[in-house]
Amino acid sequence: MKSQKTHTIRFENNCYIAATGVVCGNKEREGPLKPYLTKFIKDDKENQKTYEKAERELLITAIKNALKHANLKGENLNAIISGDLLNQIISSTFAAREFPCAHIGLYSACATMAESLLVGAMLINNKSFENVACATSSHFSSVERQYRYPLELGVQRTPTSQWTVTGAGATILSNSGTGPKIVSGTFGRVVDFGVNDVNNMGAAMAPAAINTIEKHLTDLSVDIDYYDMIFTGDLGFLGKDILKDLAAEKGIKLDDNYNDCGAMIYKDDKKHFQGGSGAGCSAVVFNSYIYENLLEGKFKRVLFLATGALLSKLTAFQGETIPCICHGVGIERFEKDAALEVKKRGQKR
Amino acid sequence: MKSQKTHTIRFENNCYIAATGVVCGNKEREGPLKPYLTKFIKDDKENQKTYEKAERELLITAIKNALKHANLKGENLNAIISGDLLNQIISSTFAAREFPCAHIGLYSACATMAESLLVGAMLINNKSFENVACATSSHFSSVERQYRYPLELGVQRTPTSQWTVTGAGATILSNSGTGPKIVSGTFGRVVDFGVNDVNNMGAAMAPAAINTIEKHLTDLSVDIDYYDMIFTGDLGFLGKDILKDLAAEKGIKLDDNYNDCGAMIYKDDKKHFQGGSGAGCSAVVFNSYIYENLLEGKFKRVLFLATGALLSKLTAFQGETIPCICHGVGIERFEKDAALEVKKRGQKR
Repeated sequence: MKSQKTHTIRFENNCYIAATGVVCGNKEREGPLKPYLTKFIKDDKENQKTYEKAERELLITAIKNALKHANLKGENLNAIISGDLLNQIISSTFAAREFPCAHIGLYSACATMAESLLVGAMLINNKSFENVACATSSHFSSVERQYRYPLELGVQRTPTSQWTVTGAGATILSNSGTGPKIVSGTFGRVVDFGVNDVNNMGAAMAPAAINTIEKHLTDLSVDIDYYDMIFTGDLGFLGKDILKDLAAEKGIKLDDNYNDCGAMIYKDDKKHFQGGSGAGCSAVVFNSYIYENLLEGKFKRVLFLATGALLSKLTAFQGETIPCICHGVGIERFEKDAALEVKKRGQKR
Repeated sequence: MKSQKTHTIRFENNCYIAATGVVCGNKEREGPLKPYLTKFIKDDKENQKTYEKAERELLITAIKNALKHANLKGENLNAIISGDLLNQIISSTFAAREFPCAHIGLYSACATMAESLLVGAMLINNKSFENVACATSSHFSSVERQYRYPLELGVQRTPTSQWTVTGAGATILSNSGTGPKIVSGTFGRVVDFGVNDVNNMGAAMAPAAINTIEKHLTDLSVDIDYYDMIFTGDLGFLGKDILKDLAAEKGIKLDDNYNDCGAMIYKDDKKHFQGGSGAGCSAVVFNSYIYENLLEGKFKRVLFLATGALLSKLTAFQGETIPCICHGVGIERFEKDAALEVKKRGQKR
């Protein structure tokens, strides 16, 4: 089946990233992105009775933090666009209850950060809404016990496993301002290469990532060189290598111009095996490291590809494989905005 | 907290409903909407090993059916926008795997049909995409065992309970054509009135419905009389009465101009208590009865409000109440299109 129609949107009106907010756990603060991460939780429960309630608090904190950085209040938002990994995206819906704006609930597993940015950019591009918050979260303790094993069981981890990031990230998109803009986006197709090992998500997701990269480049008629940097969400070390190989086969160069959020977030000390995963992984890295570097002008054009394994206990128990999806977002930094922003930031922070 | 920003979008470009597709179970075929329902499954399992796999088949059938009615193939779609009630929206993601287009996964519980129409209309209004399929499904047997009790337990139903609809509906939206158009939409806010009875969804959802109706009318500066008919998704008989009361308090007249899909789908024989529910409920009624009447010109302006209870076993077990959401879609039928369409339909079917 060959896909012929475009899956890509060009956002021709100004979809500015007004600000971001990030909060994460202690394991994440010890990683190489430490200089970019400023807000942490004290422990896994964050003064709540359960891990699920703690995850919700993470999401609320990230959104409030992003609003603060954008000099906005909840009342200034038209909508929150969010999803997460818990059944019925409870972190997102219960977090949205705390804000006086509309809620658009999404689910694309760990690809949700990119999906929310794309739906948000559509709303801004349409000139329907002025300010929206795009957000997602994950929590090691709530996710692992839902998708894999009870934490108390202490199951030995396999070499291909990844570590679910405890963290949340939020992006405020606005129709005015300065700074990096979302200029294009490609919604991914559900791709299934028959992987059924719930501890090898990188291998399952890499084919979805290459599918979206290829479609994005074709739809926009650009080469991979168009981008300074390409980031995937949470393929991890193994998945990153698989994607490089898959890309090389297609004649797409992914080398120093490419990194994976999952491979960036933890110390490479083998304790975390293939690195980070979870919807919070790409959300934390995008809204801290990637955004800051765009803001500073170090990156001019970034292709952000959040990858999701559409895994469920229900389907795994019924002998199904793991279909995957990857949504891509093109973000650009324009010089004339950059000068303005640097000036403003100096005044604000 | 007073919400000040608009939650409403006006779709000024042409977002045509090109066609719809519906499939449902045997209990639904015996209801008052029988003349509008043409495609059924033989039994609850539809030749599959599990109810979950049967639900996926329902969704695939509804999308294929809608494509057939629109004279399109899977290749002609840019995207499928769908969600459902099962954990990790597995019916939607596994159904999307069968089509060569992008997938945008949503979750708004039983409000998903309206949410998918709104996201779809944005994509068409943006002129980004030509054809999209908006779809959702539910299945009594897969949903009841996930949200409430094992089917084998034979738990006695309470008087306020509703019956989850086994069925799926799909809408093809196109940027050209004739027929009813989506002209506006209001994304709902998460509203929680403290209901925690998982068998009284109507009472929980009615406050979300009135919130969205009020916001829709305010944002568009119109009276409720602007619409010929208002339909809510699955409040059921009790919820419908509660909504009428809530509306009367606000000076909004809901009487003969109002009905609820949940109160319409089953025979009122007390066996189904408060009527139908589930994401499939409003999907089936919208894509059959409501669409056909718009097409025939019986309804000129419809406000379709799908209502969702953001219930989860996870939150129920942790002592939480049930927040709810309601998304509204304004659909209009323009006379000059109507004449054309009637002519075309005569030729096509």
